[in-house]
Amino acid sequence: MNYQIPEINLKALFLGDKGENVDLFKEILLKVVDEHVGWRQNYQPQDLPVITPYDKTSQSFEDTANHMRSVFNELSSKLRSESLPWHTAGRFWGHMNSETLMPAIIAYTAAMLWNGNNVAYESSPGTSQMEEEVGHHLCKMMSYIEGKSWGHICADGSIANLEGLWYARNMKSLPLAIKEIAPEYVKGKSDWELLNMSSNAILDIMEKIPDRLDDIKAKSARSGRYLNKLGKWLIPQTKHYSWLKAADIIGIGLDNVVAIDVDSTYHMDIEKLEATIRQLTADNIPILGVVGVVGSTEEGQIDHIHKIVELREKLEKEGIYYYIHVDAAYGGYARAIFLDENDEFIAFDKIDEVYKKHNIFTDMNLKNEWLTEDIYNAFKAMSQVETITIDPHKMGYIPYSAGAIVIKDSRMRDAISYFATYVFEKDADIPALLGAYILEGSKAGATAAAVWTAHHVLPLNVTGYGKLMGASIEGAYRFYNFLKNRKFNVDGKVIVLHPLTKPDFNMVDYVFNEEGNTDLEKMNKLNHDFFDYASYVKGDLYSNEFITSHTDFAIPDYGNSPLEFVNSLGFSRAEWDRAEKVTILRACALSPYAHDAKVFEEFAPKIEKAMQEKLEKIYLIEMNE
Amino acid sequence: MNYQIPEINLKALFLGDKGENVDLFKEILLKVVDEHVGWRQNYQPQDLPVITPYDKTSQSFEDTANHMRSVFNELSSKLRSESLPWHTAGRFWGHMNSETLMPAIIAYTAAMLWNGNNVAYESSPGTSQMEEEVGHHLCKMMSYIEGKSWGHICADGSIANLEGLWYARNMKSLPLAIKEIAPEYVKGKSDWELLNMSSNAILDIMEKIPDRLDDIKAKSARSGRYLNKLGKWLIPQTKHYSWLKAADIIGIGLDNVVAIDVDSTYHMDIEKLEATIRQLTADNIPILGVVGVVGSTEEGQIDHIHKIVELREKLEKEGIYYYIHVDAAYGGYARAIFLDENDEFIAFDKIDEVYKKHNIFTDMNLKNEWLTEDIYNAFKAMSQVETITIDPHKMGYIPYSAGAIVIKDSRMRDAISYFATYVFEKDADIPALLGAYILEGSKAGATAAAVWTAHHVLPLNVTGYGKLMGASIEGAYRFYNFLKNRKFNVDGKVIVLHPLTKPDFNMVDYVFNEEGNTDLEKMNKLNHDFFDYASYVKGDLYSNEFITSHTDFAIPDYGNSPLEFVNSLGFSRAEWDRAEKVTILRACALSPYAHDAKVFEEFAPKIEKAMQEKLEKIYLIEMNE
Repeated sequence: MNYQIPEINLKALFLGDKGENVDLFKEILLKVVDEHVGWRQNYQPQDLPVITPYDKTSQSFEDTANHMRSVFNELSSKLRSESLPWHTAGRFWGHMNSETLMPAIIAYTAAMLWNGNNVAYESSPGTSQMEEEVGHHLCKMMSYIEGKSWGHICADGSIANLEGLWYARNMKSLPLAIKEIAPEYVKGKSDWELLNMSSNAILDIMEKIPDRLDDIKAKSARSGRYLNKLGKWLIPQTKHYSWLKAADIIGIGLDNVVAIDVDSTYHMDIEKLEATIRQLTADNIPILGVVGVVGSTEEGQIDHIHKIVELREKLEKEGIYYYIHVDAAYGGYARAIFLDENDEFIAFDKIDEVYKKHNIFTDMNLKNEWLTEDIYNAFKAMSQVETITIDPHKMGYIPYSAGAIVIKDSRMRDAISYFATYVFEKDADIPALLGAYILEGSKAGATAAAVWTAHHVLPLNVTGYGKLMGASIEGAYRFYNFLKNRKFNVDGKVIVLHPLTKPDFNMVDYVFNEEGNTDLEKMNKLNHDFFDYASYVKGDLYSNEFITSHTDFAIPDYGNSPLEFVNSLGFSRAEWDRAEKVTILRACALSPYAHDAKVFEEFAPKIEKAMQEKLEKIYLIEMNE
Repeated sequence: MNYQIPEINLKALFLGDKGENVDLFKEILLKVVDEHVGWRQNYQPQDLPVITPYDKTSQSFEDTANHMRSVFNELSSKLRSESLPWHTAGRFWGHMNSETLMPAIIAYTAAMLWNGNNVAYESSPGTSQMEEEVGHHLCKMMSYIEGKSWGHICADGSIANLEGLWYARNMKSLPLAIKEIAPEYVKGKSDWELLNMSSNAILDIMEKIPDRLDDIKAKSARSGRYLNKLGKWLIPQTKHYSWLKAADIIGIGLDNVVAIDVDSTYHMDIEKLEATIRQLTADNIPILGVVGVVGSTEEGQIDHIHKIVELREKLEKEGIYYYIHVDAAYGGYARAIFLDENDEFIAFDKIDEVYKKHNIFTDMNLKNEWLTEDIYNAFKAMSQVETITIDPHKMGYIPYSAGAIVIKDSRMRDAISYFATYVFEKDADIPALLGAYILEGSKAGATAAAVWTAHHVLPLNVTGYGKLMGASIEGAYRFYNFLKNRKFNVDGKVIVLHPLTKPDFNMVDYVFNEEGNTDLEKMNKLNHDFFDYASYVKGDLYSNEFITSHTDFAIPDYGNSPLEFVNSLGFSRAEWDRAEKVTILRACALSPYAHDAKVFEEFAPKIEKAMQEKLEKIYLIEMNE
């Protein structure tokens, strides 16, 4: 169905910070339950129910039901006492948890009642079709060409990244396998040239020889061959452990992972990337691929994907090619804010006009503070890369677990699949056995239903998700501006808040430091103590008035990229070398409410008061220990 | 909490084939929703709601809500028209879909409202504790030693199997790494001896040198080293594609996978296993590991795990050691039927007594027909293997997606983990960052809550899950006995039903054949046509009166193991060689109701009639084309 999209009011799509929409929630929830039960009742109504009224009044039935009720009392108590209060409109500035979309929660529950398994079409016709549609939605959001691209839901971003690396590894090895099986197609090419063929050139050859596909695949990296010949996998210096795990699992090994320095604003340093590639290739070591990150885990920063793509175009002329995977697990949905109502990427000089029309920001000054050409160009260039990880369960506001991967050229599926192309259903182009085309096996149809429903309620452009992204970015900037140079007086001392860097997206990192303090370890302890008081560590979460999260930027992962920030706070190079890390507080600003000036202004003094109280506890207790 | 478990009545734990328990379902569902909303309302009640009454009556709010309602109409229509009617008590004998436990569905929905992410304890204290508990439940079900073993939830069985292979690969490589970093601990051992060290011996060394752990791990297979030296991974001949995928992904490669023939009852042939191992080791090729399957995908058969374990004990004396992974994705929960109310494995001669006490079977003749000593011993021996895959979303009657893996010796975690042991929380022994100890990253806390709740309602022994397993096995045997030699008259021809083999568990495979037919391809077509009429392939699922699934046993996967069955139906060896496969119909008997003689007897004539009608359609339409 094609819906006429009304002006979306985000407040109608969440249960609400105080459960304001519980009536709407229950209305739809009970409707889907009733429709499900009606479905059960009316399948072959000549069959009588097997659970009889006598069964239901038996002692064992009653006892079993009461036992179940008792277990639910314990479950509910545990959930209420040991969960994060992210539902608050203004007091939770912490981990990547938040309110999720009401339509996604209800759709998940609805589809769970049917319990489809999207591993096989046979088991889940309805939700398999939804997953296929969702894949195409995400491809379109990346401006991948319709009909040529493909995508599917994964358990999470780590699995999607692993699948991206699996694609890269097997693709890179294909030319070596072609040389063995169909040498006439790569005649005259040296091993170096084979290992620097573009993905497109490889797929064009594979397409020409469908009847030799299986033989070629049997000699590719899937056989266990060539794993040490494929070259280096280049990732940002911050090397999130999921990339180390991925290299370990996929068998290329940690020794083939090369970290590229990030700059002082936590983007991959493109000059260093080029220098590393030139040095490796000078040593005859090929580049298996480069990972760009759109929404880094700890900072939410956006790597300059356009520069990674431009560098590839430049180097390709010199016979050097690398696969590009973009890890947009966190930031992928943010591309919706750059697509107009026809899903076209908005020209840079038209952005203000479009945003005003669709009320993407309530305060365009905050938009101006946020949007740079680099951010814009990075998102634009995503359409040029081979594979992208996008997590619906992060900025898609879908409940866990829902990751996804999209591939630019659907012919690439054959680099990893376990069945020949003819298994695809003829018209629908849906794999009859999805499990043979992806890393995972059984998978909940309910996840597909949740994402499908969310995408139909909120289109992946400025009329839908773009508004939600705008709200999140605007909320982040309000918090960022609130933090800047805010001062607290505690026990005769002045404590100052310092944001780490201007956010590319909606994550705000910050530190507290005592005015005049030049001892970095002391500052680290202060911020770690603050985290303890603003998290599960110190007692009851439910009564805590301000929640945040934390991380360490340590030399083994970050090199000296935090040094500029550390210097700016008055710490010497010697202090940095001594402490070897800086402890950072971190806020993922996901609330769909905090962009509203009135809401934020109401909470700002409450946040300030809660911070003051925590600092007082620290100075009166911790610092005196 | 420790619950007093009442006599469990399974009928109180499912929504019901006709939704009979919808009132109980809604009662608990609405209670958890209300408790969640109360939690939101009462967190800092001095904060006012941000969604105001004025917001809720605005035009855009109303439009957005109506738009959402419209999308739900479409979702519900798709789910009701394109889902499998597995809820019927007697007409669905097909794919691995079924009614799931009401407590699991509600618990999932409840916990989804809190949206915890078990990747990190910080994000999900409550559900992280539940996952830890669930891991210990599953270990106990395998009779792994409490306090020494560990387990966790995975996205699905394929991921759990891949993680098992990851463990095996990294474990096998550790002695080679120890030789580089701490040679004094493996002094005098040849490479062959290093590659044949037992898991226990390896872990004992690692435990002695904690400060060199990181250096050793850095030189293990995770580095990319040794992947071609670790030897062969032995799997049953039926080689489910997920094992090929796993070998591909993990980098040992398909060339290192060796298939061991299955016998005519679809168990791994242990004599051939021994012969293969002896031949490989004679050629100086080590055995990376052996996979035994408990509940094969297509037949539900139980490999003779005890014989795989005994063979290892025998060979270990000759200096040959292999890792054992049991793929009990399907059959894992069935071990609950062998555990008494104190979770002790029941002595073989006490089984009848215990089953009578707990009403595990309504008809003990069916129990006698089912249980052999080999089945009993296979389950018993599971406690001896390194790792086991168990899917709660299969025989745990939990909604998709919930797989799991358990490891016998928790010290093995360090073979794959990305943090040192000190990261573990001191008392709780829960990893603060679970993502660093497992293959995946983000994962729904809701899954843990669903499994946790199910395990608390139904203990993993004869007082709980054992009863459900008994119901399922008994239902399967009723269907199996119903099929045996049943005849249909169609268009003057006699069509006879033949079960494939006596089920080890609850899966019943069968074929139709025309009396006197000696053309195997014709029989294959008949069964394929039958599947078309008993599935989504031919029109509307909802009005279909009998649903089944199908599979092909083809020579590339099965060798000649189906030949005995094919012969028994009157087909010659030449026919088998010509057709190269036999098409099989397949029923996973998961219904919690069909074990009841009265229920089954009510449905038997309906099944027979539906089969008759389908055969008539085939003979009148398909066979005349």
